[in-house]
Amino acid sequence: MQKPLPFTKKQLETIIKQHPTPFHIYDEAGIRKTARKLARAFSGFPFFRNYFAVKALPNPVIMKILVDEGMGMDASSYAELMLCERVGITGENIMFTSNDTPQEEYEKAFELGAMINLDDISHIDYLEKHVGIPKIICFRYNPGSLRKGGAHSHIIGKPEEAKFGATRKQLFEGYAIMKKKGVKRFGIHTMLASNELDYRYFVETARMLFELIKELSKRLDISFEFVNLGGGIGIPYRPQEEPFDLDRMAKDIGKLYKEIILGARLPPPKLFMENGRMVTGPHGYLVSKVLHLKKTYKNFIGLDACMANLMRPAMYGAYHHITVLGKEDKPTTTLYDVVGSLCENNDKFAIDRRLPKVKIHDIIVIHDTGGHGHAMGFNYNGKLRTSELLLKKNGEMKLIRRAETVEDYFATLNFFA
Amino acid sequence: MQKPLPFTKKQLETIIKQHPTPFHIYDEAGIRKTARKLARAFSGFPFFRNYFAVKALPNPVIMKILVDEGMGMDASSYAELMLCERVGITGENIMFTSNDTPQEEYEKAFELGAMINLDDISHIDYLEKHVGIPKIICFRYNPGSLRKGGAHSHIIGKPEEAKFGATRKQLFEGYAIMKKKGVKRFGIHTMLASNELDYRYFVETARMLFELIKELSKRLDISFEFVNLGGGIGIPYRPQEEPFDLDRMAKDIGKLYKEIILGARLPPPKLFMENGRMVTGPHGYLVSKVLHLKKTYKNFIGLDACMANLMRPAMYGAYHHITVLGKEDKPTTTLYDVVGSLCENNDKFAIDRRLPKVKIHDIIVIHDTGGHGHAMGFNYNGKLRTSELLLKKNGEMKLIRRAETVEDYFATLNFFA
Repeated sequence: MQKPLPFTKKQLETIIKQHPTPFHIYDEAGIRKTARKLARAFSGFPFFRNYFAVKALPNPVIMKILVDEGMGMDASSYAELMLCERVGITGENIMFTSNDTPQEEYEKAFELGAMINLDDISHIDYLEKHVGIPKIICFRYNPGSLRKGGAHSHIIGKPEEAKFGATRKQLFEGYAIMKKKGVKRFGIHTMLASNELDYRYFVETARMLFELIKELSKRLDISFEFVNLGGGIGIPYRPQEEPFDLDRMAKDIGKLYKEIILGARLPPPKLFMENGRMVTGPHGYLVSKVLHLKKTYKNFIGLDACMANLMRPAMYGAYHHITVLGKEDKPTTTLYDVVGSLCENNDKFAIDRRLPKVKIHDIIVIHDTGGHGHAMGFNYNGKLRTSELLLKKNGEMKLIRRAETVEDYFATLNFFA
Repeated sequence: MQKPLPFTKKQLETIIKQHPTPFHIYDEAGIRKTARKLARAFSGFPFFRNYFAVKALPNPVIMKILVDEGMGMDASSYAELMLCERVGITGENIMFTSNDTPQEEYEKAFELGAMINLDDISHIDYLEKHVGIPKIICFRYNPGSLRKGGAHSHIIGKPEEAKFGATRKQLFEGYAIMKKKGVKRFGIHTMLASNELDYRYFVETARMLFELIKELSKRLDISFEFVNLGGGIGIPYRPQEEPFDLDRMAKDIGKLYKEIILGARLPPPKLFMENGRMVTGPHGYLVSKVLHLKKTYKNFIGLDACMANLMRPAMYGAYHHITVLGKEDKPTTTLYDVVGSLCENNDKFAIDRRLPKVKIHDIIVIHDTGGHGHAMGFNYNGKLRTSELLLKKNGEMKLIRRAETVEDYFATLNFFA
């Protein structure tokens, strides 16, 4: 089965002439389309906004596109806050969702006027001591054994084992303390799934948070300005996987919103999510060339990209679809391991993958690298991270991150020490 | 059980006043001692040399110390070759062991006069075409199912599934071709183990290579200038693990050397290894402070370090011993998850670890970070890599790599794009 590409072979060959492989290329039209699809699914709500998880694709040009599409940014660290600031994103356009948070990160979040999402009630004192109490506060809820983790809970962890969020009891305590300290604006957040393809998981998450809002509102006499269902909407990495049913999710969440929230005559909270991967993931492509073909006990395709450019297969055993450019219609006759040049045996983009017969210099496109792709790269073995290109909606191509050089790799060293 | 530290609490507190946590600190005296122990174990051989696997700890100051101890460098990439060059290491002091190698890496290796270790016989033509045939050539052997992988073969892979090296048949072919092309100096190499604690594995590797040298020498009428047993000597990450028996390994390899090599009246080849981890690994420490204590469904110690500074626990589930500084003699009464602030649930240095009761601001020392520690760090979540310090043998402390800044993280971006 095939996965479509947003560029032709000829187009990509022209790009490669200007920008040598390997590189990630992102498809602006696709990103905007997906952003709109997400917004449209929730258009029946009083207010919906996705705060893009910056960590998925921390590139200013991409962030600007998403802001243009009406998104906020979910930042999780000092550098991500700085990135928002440099791009001109401030105030409540930022949700700051961190954990084990150092003082300077709270200071920066406070300075920018970001909405602060507290991971732990012990952070209340820490926050107050170092920066003061913000006007709007959110807590991250961890339901523990009350919820199962999603399909990928081997990665995100079972809720009761996860390091994130506060218990139910702590939530009640936390909001009560904050109310006493004079806070009037409240939000609630959870994040339980990762790359989840079953929409019903998010419906159950919404139900859980809506019920909680009802209880918290009544018991503490507070009202909620927003509810953040977290992110974690999955993408079909395998061509045979069904796409996530956004519309069905939004419809079912809408029913619960009416039933639980409006039914209890609560002031209607805004609905937030913090999806990263589902927005940009499917619209990124790692473009690489075949450097070597090797045949020992297996057949190996050696690329000019390596795991430093895409860690998910090595780190999680994740599947990424591979297209041999121009051979889309050829029969997949040969079993290959598709590998990089890093001196670690897990540097493999695919193991035992059926592909058309490949030649040296063939262009290999690895799909779905727009989320947690370039962002997770390391410099192990002295490997350098690639450039990032944007295929603009008008068909132009733009360099939005240059490739690393050896001088970047040496930047923190002192050869004269 | 405890693992010793090369510094006192007071000493470390003084260092922290100048250099804020987190940082890696390396113990020069320990590194030199281990380097000498390795050399001494093999002192009965006509010639022994370890080519330090640069990827384990690619820092120029450490590399200079190891060169001072008589080691060469094993480089696996362009950046590592450049690093050698900048440090002043050239010629046959470098072994270039790469795979899926791009042209420019062979060019650089050739220019530096490094010994080139070919991963695949198809690289012969590639090498000749792009740089020519070097005076000395080595092939990397992969015995396939003839050998089992070592204890950590889940990481390094079973030989017959690994992407590295040439088959037996290909070896005979490769040396024959190279002989025809006029090469007179030969070496042979393999690398089958990773973090292996059983010395007998290396003895069997030596036997395999010695027998192979005998056969190759006789059948092709060539002689071997060196045999490189590879690296992979393990270190006891857990305090109850037995240290690797270097002396026993060298003694048993010595017997085989006499029996197989000298017994066949072959010219005695030099003996090489390419250990990284065992040389520097035990002499590195990630020093961190407790930022937060969190109690939800488990007890969490939140550090100011995160997996960006040490990937092994998250990536491989690897054990790293933890010392709470100054509490070495306190009873280990509490079960903790020791975590960082990265927004991934696998950002945990330890899960369910028994430690003494910990307080905020306690100094936490994570052991055995001198190999594949800082080197494997990434910038995911906008997390920055730490500084590296050297505790010199005279007791002085030296900064040998500065910490990354947000500007480093932004270096490849163009905010005006």
